[in-house]
Amino acid sequence: MFAKAEETQSPKFALEHHISKRAGSRTLTHFSFNDAPEGLVRHPNPILLGPGCPHAGFFPIEFIDIHLVDEPFQGSYGTNYHSAAGGISPTTPGTANVATVPRTKRDDTDIAISDGLQYSAIEGMGPILRFSRDLITRCHKPAYDEWDVLMTNGASSGLAKAADLLLNPGDTILVEEFTFTPFLANIKETGGVPIPVKLTVKNKGEGIDIAYLADLLGNWTAYYPDHPKPKVLYTIPTGQNPLGITLSLETRKAIYTLAQQHDLTIIEDDPYGYISLPSYEKVLSNPEKLLEITIEEYLKTELAPSYLTLDTEGRVLRVETFSKLFGPGLRLGFIVAHKRFSKVMAEYSTITTRSPSGPSQFLVNSVAQKLGGVDGWLQWILKVRAAYAHRKKLFLDHLYSSPAFQKGYLTPIEPAAGMFISVILNIPETYSRADYPKLTTKLGYKSITNGVAIVLGKNMAFSLISDESTNFVRLTFASVQNDEELVEAVRRFTLSVEQFGDEL
Amino acid sequence: MFAKAEETQSPKFALEHHISKRAGSRTLTHFSFNDAPEGLVRHPNPILLGPGCPHAGFFPIEFIDIHLVDEPFQGSYGTNYHSAAGGISPTTPGTANVATVPRTKRDDTDIAISDGLQYSAIEGMGPILRFSRDLITRCHKPAYDEWDVLMTNGASSGLAKAADLLLNPGDTILVEEFTFTPFLANIKETGGVPIPVKLTVKNKGEGIDIAYLADLLGNWTAYYPDHPKPKVLYTIPTGQNPLGITLSLETRKAIYTLAQQHDLTIIEDDPYGYISLPSYEKVLSNPEKLLEITIEEYLKTELAPSYLTLDTEGRVLRVETFSKLFGPGLRLGFIVAHKRFSKVMAEYSTITTRSPSGPSQFLVNSVAQKLGGVDGWLQWILKVRAAYAHRKKLFLDHLYSSPAFQKGYLTPIEPAAGMFISVILNIPETYSRADYPKLTTKLGYKSITNGVAIVLGKNMAFSLISDESTNFVRLTFASVQNDEELVEAVRRFTLSVEQFGDEL
Repeated sequence: MFAKAEETQSPKFALEHHISKRAGSRTLTHFSFNDAPEGLVRHPNPILLGPGCPHAGFFPIEFIDIHLVDEPFQGSYGTNYHSAAGGISPTTPGTANVATVPRTKRDDTDIAISDGLQYSAIEGMGPILRFSRDLITRCHKPAYDEWDVLMTNGASSGLAKAADLLLNPGDTILVEEFTFTPFLANIKETGGVPIPVKLTVKNKGEGIDIAYLADLLGNWTAYYPDHPKPKVLYTIPTGQNPLGITLSLETRKAIYTLAQQHDLTIIEDDPYGYISLPSYEKVLSNPEKLLEITIEEYLKTELAPSYLTLDTEGRVLRVETFSKLFGPGLRLGFIVAHKRFSKVMAEYSTITTRSPSGPSQFLVNSVAQKLGGVDGWLQWILKVRAAYAHRKKLFLDHLYSSPAFQKGYLTPIEPAAGMFISVILNIPETYSRADYPKLTTKLGYKSITNGVAIVLGKNMAFSLISDESTNFVRLTFASVQNDEELVEAVRRFTLSVEQFGDEL
Repeated sequence: MFAKAEETQSPKFALEHHISKRAGSRTLTHFSFNDAPEGLVRHPNPILLGPGCPHAGFFPIEFIDIHLVDEPFQGSYGTNYHSAAGGISPTTPGTANVATVPRTKRDDTDIAISDGLQYSAIEGMGPILRFSRDLITRCHKPAYDEWDVLMTNGASSGLAKAADLLLNPGDTILVEEFTFTPFLANIKETGGVPIPVKLTVKNKGEGIDIAYLADLLGNWTAYYPDHPKPKVLYTIPTGQNPLGITLSLETRKAIYTLAQQHDLTIIEDDPYGYISLPSYEKVLSNPEKLLEITIEEYLKTELAPSYLTLDTEGRVLRVETFSKLFGPGLRLGFIVAHKRFSKVMAEYSTITTRSPSGPSQFLVNSVAQKLGGVDGWLQWILKVRAAYAHRKKLFLDHLYSSPAFQKGYLTPIEPAAGMFISVILNIPETYSRADYPKLTTKLGYKSITNGVAIVLGKNMAFSLISDESTNFVRLTFASVQNDEELVEAVRRFTLSVEQFGDEL
């Protein structure tokens, strides 16, 4: 009996020690009764008087028709969206393009009303799990086999699950010095301690400083005698938030190697990496070509590869979301991780979020299936990417032609992906770098008066070691309605910088 | 300046000490910049380059049509649902009955695509918050003013938030001895300690034993010298899970008074209380009358009043869900609580679930608005209630006419609300009550063989003090498809009990 159990057991996961005591020791309660001694005759078609699931006949919905657009800003917003070189022309709503959520499923790609409004597996509903696995296989295939996908309530929820999985009280986690600061609350909740990693910033971006990281890890006790060596690196490697930097493949390889040498797991937060942004020069020289790209070209030449593609042992937890390519209100995303990590995170889901919303799952699934599955979804992504790339070009056009730029007051960091353009403020060296937080606040006030909402760099830092690099502002071209508004926003922002610079 | 701050501050909440140290000490990070010194000129129409929200023009959906049914089991399931006295006749789908989710809102009752797929307030989206507040005001109006509604990711998520709010490590919480056991994992997560409260069980139900509870609280240190006095009572007062018991108003008043005397907060878990079930005798004598009830009659004579209606000071946290009246897959519900409690729970939402799914919110909101708002929604509830009441009658018809009942082997607890009928197994007194868990397992095996899934009472208990009362089985009439299946399920179950009883 013992031998038999051993035979069927899968080999122990080599990174098991990364699971926090809290996450690894949960015991969940189930009250269904289905255990039976060997040999007991089971009825082939049991009727359920046990689980408290209302029959789907109690759901008030017969079916749902989702009317799709063919392109971003089509339909209701079409008249407001200004076509420009490389932009997308306004067209009429794609009323012929309807995805139906039927009451009962037609085939295995459907999440029907009867399933989508019912209790479901914590891990997510079958069709969208398969879609997400297929998407990862197509775009970011891990270099090992024992991975799986766990649906989450969006990226924030995914990050909360990852933090719970990995961090014991007192554990340290490396975090880019400028980062998505709300994640710090998740770290704090576990009792973990964030340690900043320096970023190198240049016009084309650069990101994590490898020499700095190698030195930090190699001489840890010299730098942090009171803290244990870090267990985790939290990073946004593509279109970094807030700096917009995308790490090169070489840098990723070097970081993964360091992670192996120092036994780090990597939480890869990648909410908008699919939005690749061709370089300014390239778009400038041939703006009409923006939409002329095949999926194969996109995957080969534009999409930044996930750490998953380098991962041979389950060290990487990739946190994705449908927020930026479909809609943030979905609160739907997924984590790609080693099966063992997935399983433990699903237990945390059970006591916090439970499964993500069924309607969010069937909405995304129905639209993705209607578009044609993974490649249809990638075609949609290419359209979103084209609209963002057009906005990036327009943004830079007007930034580079602004008086503030002409006077040398600012330098943009040109993003290769994502939705953020950060702008470095060239503050004269007569000012102490330690005063940057105080100084940039003045730019914040000018922006309020001139009518443009911005994010100051100092508000994306979490450690005093970053004060001297807070001479930047995070901007996004994602939320304006049209080209005119974008141009006006850049005018207001550069005017604010000009006033700020003139007064320095 | 100090005086001014004091003037505008609201009076301190008298139950502030109920907030756990963990929940009360969270500090959340925000990175938007909008603070400005007094007197700074603000632009009247700022453009947003700050927050990373994609414009709604990037969402792939133009609009959504939700095709409603007029009654449960209409349409796809119509042909499978057998009309019977008091039941609902199959009809054709209500195709004329369409709720549209428009791309942009038409009026303030809409959650449109542009808002429903966008980031939103953690507390929930405006229209459904208002709907939920109006529903509570209509049905369970609290006896104080400072209450509010917080949308949750369903009842389980609501319970997780309540546990986090109230329980410090080592704090004790009173829990009905038979209960929704998954909540125990939430208690454990906080470090809280569940203490069982005895339930009295009779044919018509009875529930929490007031004398027992008063004695327990009055002489706490004699019973539990090693534990502090409890801070919280967790209770399912209406259609109790698993026993189906609904507490009388007198019992509720007595319990609320005890809660005041001993400074307890009350977590009222009420997932299916709206499904009131007229007594068997009443339905038997006049089955056609099931649907002939007005909303006013329902509210006055059938709906069991929430503890909220007795609550004068914010002691009650009512956890509701749309799972049982709309669909569990929504993962949508709400908590009604004192505003201060709500605010602290919303902070916990921020680091775990964030806001509930937008699609779940706009689905429920669109359907509820299409039905006519609160009273339209209550009309839908009355139809659901009629279908459940019909099932309860049918279930009892066949239970009472079964050989197992004739032989005296079982006694049902007739529910006045909810979806559960529990059945007491009349095990001869020659058996030791301590053996009930072992004995009832045999009934479990017979049910597996005869083809009916049931929940054994022992699996809904969490303490050894309940072993001697585990001679019951929890059944539900919620998940079968139609009358025939229900009748067959009762046949299989009563056959199992008969075999079990014959062999004792």
